[in-house]
Amino acid sequence: MNTSISLIPQNVVDHLRELHALTGNAAGSQRLAWTGTWGTARDWLRQKLEQLPVEIEVDEAANTWATLKGASPKALVMGSHIDSVANGGWLDGCLGVVTALEVLRHLAAQGVPPVTVRLVNWADEEGARFGRSLFGASAVSGNFDPDELRKLTDKEGVRLVDAVAKFGVDLDRAKEAGRQLKNTAAYLELHIEQGPVLESLNMPLGAVLGTLGVERHKITFTGQTAHAGSTPMEMRRDALAAAARLELEIREIAKRHGGVCTMGGVFTRPGIVTAVVGQCDALLDQRHLDAPTLARMLQEAKEASQRFAQEEKVDVEWQRLWQIDPIFFHPDLVALCEESIRETCGVVHRLPSGPLHDAAEVARAGVPTVMMFAQSLYGLSHTKEEDTREEHLLFAVEAFDRLAAKTIDWILKH
Amino acid sequence: MNTSISLIPQNVVDHLRELHALTGNAAGSQRLAWTGTWGTARDWLRQKLEQLPVEIEVDEAANTWATLKGASPKALVMGSHIDSVANGGWLDGCLGVVTALEVLRHLAAQGVPPVTVRLVNWADEEGARFGRSLFGASAVSGNFDPDELRKLTDKEGVRLVDAVAKFGVDLDRAKEAGRQLKNTAAYLELHIEQGPVLESLNMPLGAVLGTLGVERHKITFTGQTAHAGSTPMEMRRDALAAAARLELEIREIAKRHGGVCTMGGVFTRPGIVTAVVGQCDALLDQRHLDAPTLARMLQEAKEASQRFAQEEKVDVEWQRLWQIDPIFFHPDLVALCEESIRETCGVVHRLPSGPLHDAAEVARAGVPTVMMFAQSLYGLSHTKEEDTREEHLLFAVEAFDRLAAKTIDWILKH
Repeated sequence: MNTSISLIPQNVVDHLRELHALTGNAAGSQRLAWTGTWGTARDWLRQKLEQLPVEIEVDEAANTWATLKGASPKALVMGSHIDSVANGGWLDGCLGVVTALEVLRHLAAQGVPPVTVRLVNWADEEGARFGRSLFGASAVSGNFDPDELRKLTDKEGVRLVDAVAKFGVDLDRAKEAGRQLKNTAAYLELHIEQGPVLESLNMPLGAVLGTLGVERHKITFTGQTAHAGSTPMEMRRDALAAAARLELEIREIAKRHGGVCTMGGVFTRPGIVTAVVGQCDALLDQRHLDAPTLARMLQEAKEASQRFAQEEKVDVEWQRLWQIDPIFFHPDLVALCEESIRETCGVVHRLPSGPLHDAAEVARAGVPTVMMFAQSLYGLSHTKEEDTREEHLLFAVEAFDRLAAKTIDWILKH
Repeated sequence: MNTSISLIPQNVVDHLRELHALTGNAAGSQRLAWTGTWGTARDWLRQKLEQLPVEIEVDEAANTWATLKGASPKALVMGSHIDSVANGGWLDGCLGVVTALEVLRHLAAQGVPPVTVRLVNWADEEGARFGRSLFGASAVSGNFDPDELRKLTDKEGVRLVDAVAKFGVDLDRAKEAGRQLKNTAAYLELHIEQGPVLESLNMPLGAVLGTLGVERHKITFTGQTAHAGSTPMEMRRDALAAAARLELEIREIAKRHGGVCTMGGVFTRPGIVTAVVGQCDALLDQRHLDAPTLARMLQEAKEASQRFAQEEKVDVEWQRLWQIDPIFFHPDLVALCEESIRETCGVVHRLPSGPLHDAAEVARAGVPTVMMFAQSLYGLSHTKEEDTREEHLLFAVEAFDRLAAKTIDWILKH
C-alpha cells in the first residue's frame, strides 16, 4: 500500500475497480452477504487492512473492525458495508468502506492520531438473501431478535441460522458485538445517494440530516364484483375506483407536507377484463423526517381512503406492515459535514435519506453520527447501471477525509 | 307430461327445480358443457321432449333440436342453453330452454300450428371450460373457425377437440349445422338479465334491444421504477398514477355517452411496497349499443391515456384483445316483445344486453331475433346466489308464450 502522507483519492477509485473485477460480472456486483463472493470481498479488504498499522478483528455479528490506536481511547468510527444485492452496482456500500480505508491510511501515515480511529465493514446491510437488512449494525445497536431471525430462510430454503454459522456467527451471541460501541465518540459514513436529488441540483455531495420515518400499510378496498357488460356505471361498487382516487390523493398529501408517498403495488380481484373489481389491495409507503408530520400524513391518507370508500360505496380496511421513526443525525456533525463539502466543492446541499443505512442503527444506539452522500447518476441503484462521475467520487474522498479530521477535533473538544 | 291445452307457467318452475336437483349441488349448478353432468341435463331434456309430438335431432355442433311440424315449413325457433358455468346459478340458460319446452307443449296441445315451431338447446354457450363461448350457436351462424378451436385446452390440458368428439362433434363438420337455420323465420330467447337494471326499476321483465358492441384492450403504461424513499414526488415517472387517472376518466366517458367502461384488472411491476411502479398494465372493457358512439368512447379513452401519459412522463401502448360490433334485434320483434310484457305485467322496460347470448349469433346470421329478460335479484349471476322471484318467473313464461303466439302471426304476415 502507498505510504504517502497525502490523501490519494484516486486510490479509492482504483480499489473500487479492483474489487468489482474480483467480485462482479457482466450482470453487476455479486457480493451477496453470507456467500463465497462476499467472503472473497472480505478477504480482499483484510489484505488491504493488513498493510496498515491496525488491529483487525471480526466481531460476533461478522462485522470487521480495524483499529488504529490513538492517544485517546475515544474512537472515531468510519465505515459502511461491502455486501451488495445480487446484480448490484459497483458503489453501493463499498464506496464507504474503501473511502474509510483510504482515510485510515492517510491518518496512519501521519503517525499516532490524537484519538483512536476505526474502520468497520458492517455484515449484511442489504438483507438481500434473507429479507433482513442491517444485520451486523443492528446486532451492535441491540435492535436484534435472534428468535425472529431464526425463522428466516432464503428462496432455496437455506436457513439464515445455518448460513451465518458458516461465517462464525451464533445468533444468540451476536448482540455481544455491542461492546464495539464502547468508547465510540462519533460515526461517519459515506454512501451514494441512490436517488436523483443531488444530480437534479447539480451538487456533487450532500450532508445527510437523518433517515426518514416510514409507515407501510396494506389497504384493502372491498366492493362488489359485477358483470362489466350488464352493470350500469351508477350501480357499481368498484373497489379499484377508490384505490385509484387514493393513489392520486397520496401525491397531494406528500407534496403538501414535503414528504414522499408511494402506492407501490395494486392487486385486483377477480382481475379479469369482464368484471368490475370486487376487491383491491393497495400497498402504501409514506416517509417523512418529522414524526408528527408523518403521523399527519398517515392520518390524512386514512381519512381520504374512508371518504373515497364512502363515496364509492365500498369498504376499506388498513393493516400496518412496518413502521420506523425518523432518526436524526448529530447537528454538530451535520454542520461539520456541510463545512467539509463546501470546502471541497464550493457548494453543498442538506437532504434526508429515504433509504435506511447502517448509520441509522449507530445513531439509534446513541452515537453522534452523520452521513455524506455522493451524487448518483439517474438516481439508479441496486442495478449494474448504478454509477457516479469519477470527479464526484474524488470530491467525496477529499470531503470525507476533511470530515474525519474535523470530527477528530470535535471529539477532542467534547 | 301434462296435456292441458292451457299454458302452465308453474311447470317451468317445477322443471327448473327438478333439473337443479339432478345436476346441481351445494356449490351451485354443475352443467359444464362437454361433461357427464351436462350429458345428464341433455338426457333429461330429451326425455321431456319425447313426451311431445316432436322430432328430435342433435346437429353436427351438438345442438339439440325438437321440431313440431306446422302447416307452413317456415319456422319459429325458441331456445337458449342448458349448460352452466361451474358453481353456477339455477336459471342462467336453462330458464330459456325450459320455458321454450312449456310453450312448445302448450302449442302442441292445441293441434298442428300454422307454422313449424322448434326448440333449440345450444351447445356450450358459456365457454367456461375451454374459454370459447357460443360454441353451438356460432357453428350455426358460421362465425366458427375449426383451426382456432383446435388449439384450445382446458386447465387440465384436455383438448377441446377430444372433449367435443365424445359428444359426436367433428370440428371440421360442425358448421354443417348451419342448415338448421333454413326456413327459420324468427328466433326468440328468454334469459335472466344477469344485471341490476330491471330490479332497480322494479320491472319484472324487459324487452332486449340487442347486444352491446365491445372493445377490449390492454393498456400498458411504462414509467421508471424508483426507490420509494429516495425519489422526490416531482421526479417520479409513476406508471400507476397514469393508470389511476384513466380508471377515473373512463367512468366519465361512460357516463357522457351512456355506455359502460370497466377497468377490470390492474397489474403493477415490480409491485413492491418500496418501489414507485415502473410498469402498469390495465385491462379495459368498453361497451355501447351504438357503433359510432363506441368508437368515440374508445377514441376518448385513447386520447385521455395519451394526455395522462404525457403529464405523468410515462409511455403508453394499447393492444386490442377483442372486439365485436353491436348487434340489433329485429324492431318488429322488439315491439312484439314489449307488447307481450305489457299485457302480462302492465309495465315494460327496453334495455340492451351487456353480456352476449346465443341470440346474438342467430341475429348475426340474419334471422329476425329478439330476447326477453327476466329480472335478476341483486344483479348476481354465475354464482349459486343467482335468483329471480318466483312470480317474475311465472310472468316470464306467460309473456314469452304471448310473444311466441304474436311472432307466429308476424311470420304468417311476412
